[in-house]
Amino acid sequence: MPIGDLPLLRAARREATDFTPVWLMRQAGRYLPEYRALRERYKFLDLCKSPDAAATVTLQPVKRFPLDAAILFADILLVVEPMGVGLEFARGDGPVIHTPLRSRGDVERLARIDARDALPFVFETVRIVRRELDRRVPLIGFAGAPFTVASYLVEGGASRDYLETKTLMYRDPVAWHALMGVLVGVTADYLNGQIEAGVQAVQLFDSWVGALSADDYRTFVLPYSRALIRALAPGIPVIHFGTGTAALLPSMQEAGGDVIGLDWRVDLGQAWARLGPDVAVQGNLDPAVLMADPDQIRLRVRAILARAAGRPGHIFNLGHGVLQHTPVDHVAALIDMVHELSSKSGER
Amino acid sequence: MPIGDLPLLRAARREATDFTPVWLMRQAGRYLPEYRALRERYKFLDLCKSPDAAATVTLQPVKRFPLDAAILFADILLVVEPMGVGLEFARGDGPVIHTPLRSRGDVERLARIDARDALPFVFETVRIVRRELDRRVPLIGFAGAPFTVASYLVEGGASRDYLETKTLMYRDPVAWHALMGVLVGVTADYLNGQIEAGVQAVQLFDSWVGALSADDYRTFVLPYSRALIRALAPGIPVIHFGTGTAALLPSMQEAGGDVIGLDWRVDLGQAWARLGPDVAVQGNLDPAVLMADPDQIRLRVRAILARAAGRPGHIFNLGHGVLQHTPVDHVAALIDMVHELSSKSGER
Repeated sequence: MPIGDLPLLRAARREATDFTPVWLMRQAGRYLPEYRALRERYKFLDLCKSPDAAATVTLQPVKRFPLDAAILFADILLVVEPMGVGLEFARGDGPVIHTPLRSRGDVERLARIDARDALPFVFETVRIVRRELDRRVPLIGFAGAPFTVASYLVEGGASRDYLETKTLMYRDPVAWHALMGVLVGVTADYLNGQIEAGVQAVQLFDSWVGALSADDYRTFVLPYSRALIRALAPGIPVIHFGTGTAALLPSMQEAGGDVIGLDWRVDLGQAWARLGPDVAVQGNLDPAVLMADPDQIRLRVRAILARAAGRPGHIFNLGHGVLQHTPVDHVAALIDMVHELSSKSGER
Repeated sequence: MPIGDLPLLRAARREATDFTPVWLMRQAGRYLPEYRALRERYKFLDLCKSPDAAATVTLQPVKRFPLDAAILFADILLVVEPMGVGLEFARGDGPVIHTPLRSRGDVERLARIDARDALPFVFETVRIVRRELDRRVPLIGFAGAPFTVASYLVEGGASRDYLETKTLMYRDPVAWHALMGVLVGVTADYLNGQIEAGVQAVQLFDSWVGALSADDYRTFVLPYSRALIRALAPGIPVIHFGTGTAALLPSMQEAGGDVIGLDWRVDLGQAWARLGPDVAVQGNLDPAVLMADPDQIRLRVRAILARAAGRPGHIFNLGHGVLQHTPVDHVAALIDMVHELSSKSGER
């Protein structure tokens, strides 16, 4: 089968598939014992920067489960580390940016990097994974979208209210627009580097963009997400993802993407109807549902598939990443359920 | 003027007003120097339990600004403290529940209380505030909605993903439904006690319900919010509020409320159109906008008022509470702008 006919890539083009393809955000991660074992030997950043180890992690879930895609093991903030912002992953906590950006001067002091030179380990990981995967499933590359990466740079880490980010937008729009412009260029180079190294689809993670009103999204985010998506090499499907985006979906679609990611807060059928027929969708099971018994999981998988109504262009996924304490056998059960319940032939 | 003709109460009934009434969630709080001064003499819980001081705090913003309502100074977790869950407000952090509920047994061990006996200080605060306010502006009482209160009881404090709460729902629905049933009864008594003491409207804070899918809302939350709202004394407007609720609004409306609270993520005009003509709306300025310059604030106030289109039944508010570092003069400017830009007579 030509690689382009693999179910995930067909679904991204809204072509019919024999069953609904499924992968899971953060499918390589702490819920897997083989990941935790490897992590004992590496700090998080060191693991991301060791191509053999990062490739091993990328492949762990694909070896264990009949997933329809692998996703590169990396972090959305890798790309900003060479810009000199003091990135650190503290044990047990989220990322910390030791010199957060709060002014135009801070933005101007960012080191100008060529992402293709600065992140060779990522591209090497992609090449190793592609060799190992052969043509079995496609490899998805990814990057943080400009807003979400900017929010970490401005807040200095995770946030609940994104107050520093919004304050910069409102009080110093010149600094904000400068920062977003820098991130578009760097991220486009980074993703095009991944594409050249062999990823067959890319996901843009605008994970925290749901903190914004639609007006702010359109003024401060949409032009940059659009410019980034337009700067990517043609022919590679782009999955455009965020959470808390019920009110932003039409604007995110306008920014671009062949596939729009849906979190669990929206009804997949209603959201897809609003987006219209010209786009595929990905989602949308609440990651917390994997804590429930398999019978419960099955009911909810069935409900999502019913809302997709067998229409070509649905990639099954969670609404956000796999949670740390998720039972591994529930993940296995989920993937089987998606394949079984969506199977057109009944033979699979 | 009869109290019922005060603008906020008219708007809650979708009757025409000369200008759009405005109040702000957390209008009494840390952004006010007079609040911070008083807080130096009281721990948070002690302040809530001291009727004279709590009344003073309630009145602080109403004395400073031409607000169209006062809101009782209290906390949504006051009602659970007498149930023996080990509530504490740690300095600088959010609330902590020292014995979180994780099972049916935990729910059964909750002390059964009569909220009317257990919280006399709240009702006394209401009576003092009403005397002081005379008939100038109405006093809004409030309680946490069952889901949001339950989320604190189950998580043991604030949460990002509400994983323990969802896990209890999914794995032990009997325990969940028992807990929600208890909270409906206690909260109904608590709010009816506030109404008897003199509040002229009530707001139900389901602040964190936006973490749920609409399916989960309908199964695990809607019946309880509805039962609670139906158990309230008639004739008192109910404001039903949550954040992140873009996909939940029709279900929240089905649960009840004369006024539906809108956070800043939704377009007020679109949301109101979806809700239909039989309900008023409250909102919906992003609290972070108060960090911007007054010119920026003005543009955004104007946009919200334009979306309300002068239709009776809009109460202006933020989409969530006033943030701690909000400039006091921006709050003053906001309230004046709402009155000025919405004024029908031009004489105000």
